[in-house]
Amino acid sequence: MVEIGAPKDIQKLYNFVDDVSDSELFETWKPKIRAYLADLDKEAIEEYRVPSTEVPKDLDEKSFDTVEFLNETKHLSEEEKRITDSSVVDIEKEIASKKLSSVAVLKAFAHRAVILNQFTNFATQFFIREALTKAQELDDYISKTGKTVGPLHGIPISVKEQIGMAGKVTHGGWVAWLDFIPKEDATTVKVLKDLGAVMYVRTNEPQTLMHLDSNNNITGRTRNPFNSILSAGGSSGGEGACVGGRGSAIGVGSDIGGSIRAPAAFCGAWGFRPTTRRISTAGGVSSGKGQETIVAVEGPLAHSAEDVDYFMKSYINSGKPWEEDPWCIPLPWREVAKPKASDITVAIIYDNGLVAPHPPIARGLNAVAEKLKAAGVNVIKFEPLEAEEAYDVCCQIYTCDGNLAQKAMLKPSGEPLLPLTKWAFSMGNGDKALSIIDNRNLTARRDNLRKVYNDYFVKNKVDFIISPTYVGVAPCTVDDGIAGPFFWGYTSLWNILDLPTLVAPTGLSQDPKIDTPNKDYKPRSYVDKIEQNKYIPELFEKAPICLQLTGRRYFDEEVVAFGELFEDVMNA
Amino acid sequence: MVEIGAPKDIQKLYNFVDDVSDSELFETWKPKIRAYLADLDKEAIEEYRVPSTEVPKDLDEKSFDTVEFLNETKHLSEEEKRITDSSVVDIEKEIASKKLSSVAVLKAFAHRAVILNQFTNFATQFFIREALTKAQELDDYISKTGKTVGPLHGIPISVKEQIGMAGKVTHGGWVAWLDFIPKEDATTVKVLKDLGAVMYVRTNEPQTLMHLDSNNNITGRTRNPFNSILSAGGSSGGEGACVGGRGSAIGVGSDIGGSIRAPAAFCGAWGFRPTTRRISTAGGVSSGKGQETIVAVEGPLAHSAEDVDYFMKSYINSGKPWEEDPWCIPLPWREVAKPKASDITVAIIYDNGLVAPHPPIARGLNAVAEKLKAAGVNVIKFEPLEAEEAYDVCCQIYTCDGNLAQKAMLKPSGEPLLPLTKWAFSMGNGDKALSIIDNRNLTARRDNLRKVYNDYFVKNKVDFIISPTYVGVAPCTVDDGIAGPFFWGYTSLWNILDLPTLVAPTGLSQDPKIDTPNKDYKPRSYVDKIEQNKYIPELFEKAPICLQLTGRRYFDEEVVAFGELFEDVMNA
Repeated sequence: MVEIGAPKDIQKLYNFVDDVSDSELFETWKPKIRAYLADLDKEAIEEYRVPSTEVPKDLDEKSFDTVEFLNETKHLSEEEKRITDSSVVDIEKEIASKKLSSVAVLKAFAHRAVILNQFTNFATQFFIREALTKAQELDDYISKTGKTVGPLHGIPISVKEQIGMAGKVTHGGWVAWLDFIPKEDATTVKVLKDLGAVMYVRTNEPQTLMHLDSNNNITGRTRNPFNSILSAGGSSGGEGACVGGRGSAIGVGSDIGGSIRAPAAFCGAWGFRPTTRRISTAGGVSSGKGQETIVAVEGPLAHSAEDVDYFMKSYINSGKPWEEDPWCIPLPWREVAKPKASDITVAIIYDNGLVAPHPPIARGLNAVAEKLKAAGVNVIKFEPLEAEEAYDVCCQIYTCDGNLAQKAMLKPSGEPLLPLTKWAFSMGNGDKALSIIDNRNLTARRDNLRKVYNDYFVKNKVDFIISPTYVGVAPCTVDDGIAGPFFWGYTSLWNILDLPTLVAPTGLSQDPKIDTPNKDYKPRSYVDKIEQNKYIPELFEKAPICLQLTGRRYFDEEVVAFGELFEDVMNA
Repeated sequence: MVEIGAPKDIQKLYNFVDDVSDSELFETWKPKIRAYLADLDKEAIEEYRVPSTEVPKDLDEKSFDTVEFLNETKHLSEEEKRITDSSVVDIEKEIASKKLSSVAVLKAFAHRAVILNQFTNFATQFFIREALTKAQELDDYISKTGKTVGPLHGIPISVKEQIGMAGKVTHGGWVAWLDFIPKEDATTVKVLKDLGAVMYVRTNEPQTLMHLDSNNNITGRTRNPFNSILSAGGSSGGEGACVGGRGSAIGVGSDIGGSIRAPAAFCGAWGFRPTTRRISTAGGVSSGKGQETIVAVEGPLAHSAEDVDYFMKSYINSGKPWEEDPWCIPLPWREVAKPKASDITVAIIYDNGLVAPHPPIARGLNAVAEKLKAAGVNVIKFEPLEAEEAYDVCCQIYTCDGNLAQKAMLKPSGEPLLPLTKWAFSMGNGDKALSIIDNRNLTARRDNLRKVYNDYFVKNKVDFIISPTYVGVAPCTVDDGIAGPFFWGYTSLWNILDLPTLVAPTGLSQDPKIDTPNKDYKPRSYVDKIEQNKYIPELFEKAPICLQLTGRRYFDEEVVAFGELFEDVMNA
């Protein structure tokens, strides 16, 4: 085992009773897991795969760069590489003008996805044959009518497994849910299919859906496509690996504490956490139904800000999700032009005062500040604002029911608890359920925080805030996640505030030679110490450096438009 | 005492312990109440009042029609009557074109309000002198600049007392809150002032804010302006009486179970419960902070649908409440044309299957159906849909904390509990607090109901639903509210569904000769029996008949536009 800086005495922070795992009971579920995995194997079309001899046996011991492999392999044709390197916007243009067929596009992405999965284990389910039939129907439609069925006609979209699909097992990472087969598609699946999207793969997630990593007792751990010993993030880690490795044109994840953004950032993708009630979450499996203090969202992981914009516009303006799900607000997606650099003010969170970012993230923040300034942006420093208060409320809310809902979903299978599940159960007050009055008080504290941050934007005329997504780049999670992400405070801040937040790649990646540890840093807390101890520069080579861009509530369009400017500036 | 059909054995439904009232303790608060009332008396400008000899001594024993009195009294000048009979839209035009001064407009409404208050006891606080200074400043501004400060320049607006005002006692009907003086205006007050509104009166509400009547231990009971023995409704009953009696150009109330709509309907006014998050509720006193399953809203009580539209448009598009309160969605108020009668389908709830409407309401529903049909509207019957389920969830949510928050607000004063407080405390599970998991389950049931109703609209292509506001017209509440409104199901349905709902006067009113009791009706439940027993036709003479118009979530603009058509059709 490589030294990964795992905390040695994390148990002292545990704040729960394991009254759910039961190894005998779990044995009885193993045949079901094996059947599920056999189906996954069967549907990962044989002829799409690379020979198993090309897949290193030591992916979990030694860094392997799958993206580089995919870019160089001869198993993908040049045309397949061209297609999978294209944006959704460009693919859609080629499909609409009949330069590309939906079948060709699907084959390219599915082929790449199957290979990517051999290395990263990002998929929970393939159904490529079914998708090919659908793609053929779309091709027939366009050749008959000359029109596309909708703005996502023929776009291969990956979807986090937790989002229900009719007739397909939807377990959400809970072993006991392997029996659950929804009768109807989740609203988002329905909307996307109606717009012409083609679905062919569902993606991995962690046990409980409450890790910023993706490991569970069904499909196991998803590897980072840039470095196989690192985490692909979570809870939408399958999406992170899939989109980061270009196994899909665009993907859909969900996020209540960082679950779209950590995977996007760890895997070098764009990832958007919209404001609540713009994208439907109806029809997803989770433990949090009815918890409304911090509300989960769904949103895209993508290859560019432009694709995020196209997805959101298509989903909202053409998809009209409120016809299906009255939780969604009939608020059109506005056309917002890329801002002029000299017109905007950006505040940067260099450090939230609780846990300092690791050297590569600090370097990323500084590089971004310099480039934005050079482009004419008014860049200011964001002084930490109620970060501790915000994190305290988040942690208490995540476990406010005393882990009862989670345990009720785990218990029927007796599955063992993974290290990051133990951590998630220990947040806030752990197993101690709060009263309704306690919960209301937390909600009132949340509202106060929202007011404080809204005032910050309005009174200081700040347009956007840039912040780390996580303390570091993707952490190493080879040992069941024991050195995984513990501190969620940089992402969960935007969940509690419900502010639209876009993860944007900086184009930079970790370099052990430059990003040397800061030996003078004195950890401010035990959790800070855990996070700092994990920074062993050699582990993280090639891990992408991605940051969060945040704007005001329901100013989602402005945030994405700023993402386009950010992309220009960083590429310049 | 007149026979009012009060339930004789309501105690058997009580489901709480009175561990708050304490008569000795309450004695110590009486000086504070007296001081508060003395201030109210002092600020109800002496020379605006009619001689006390003109105010009947037996208002609580014998029906008195204050509206008729005001229309005929010589104490109001013809010009004052003309102004107070005008719409907000017309007043604003006259102010903008300098035909009317803000001071003249304020004087007219304040004069009428002071007289109206002598009969109906709708006000908790006047501050007319302060308002006259503000009105003079507005007049100076317009004469200096030629412009108005905003779309509500010089409009006299009444505000429910529970909505906080800087520097003014804000008690919300709780005696113990007589010490509370907010430092800042509530967001809605701030927004309206910025738009040029003039505030001069705050209005009455019930103990706990959870009655559909308005009686408390501070200012007592508000009387219906059309019939003094009847209820003005609640909890925004002061607003109902004030707007119904034209003591203000427009007013602001709040609503979590019918609290804008019952007063509007009982007092013959228009009243709008917008979808949540369009009008800010920040800065109001209530027991429900952080309760998010059924969320309170603020909204206008007005003299016409056109005025409701003008208020909403001004508040949202010019007021931009999201700059102050990030809870509000930056969703512009859309210009929606009055629909063509033949283009729409309207479903009518004649009876929700739980408690049948009294004869005058049934007559109103039939008259509306006939008139709409004659105008070309496609009118269909709405078959009861999950009414029992919806009401059960509502009642459980209203008391989900086991009345703890309410009791914490009552206890410091030891004030006695009024009959309708005892009823409110007995809803759902009464004093038994639910767990967070119970609450989440109720929230999930709520979401299911929202889906069922949204599907009803979409799949049946129904544009609007018309329903009773309450079982009857305004009930008689002379005896501390013991014969007050018990069944909230017709209004609370739209709260749990969060659908925009406009109360619209039909132009009809109760007539004991026509609206004779239905002797064959068999009550379906004990609560139904209570409600039916109260129907003693002679009590309700002249009580207005108003109905609810409901549309889809966030289709607020369409509902108000339909209100304009409804007005045309009913007046035709």
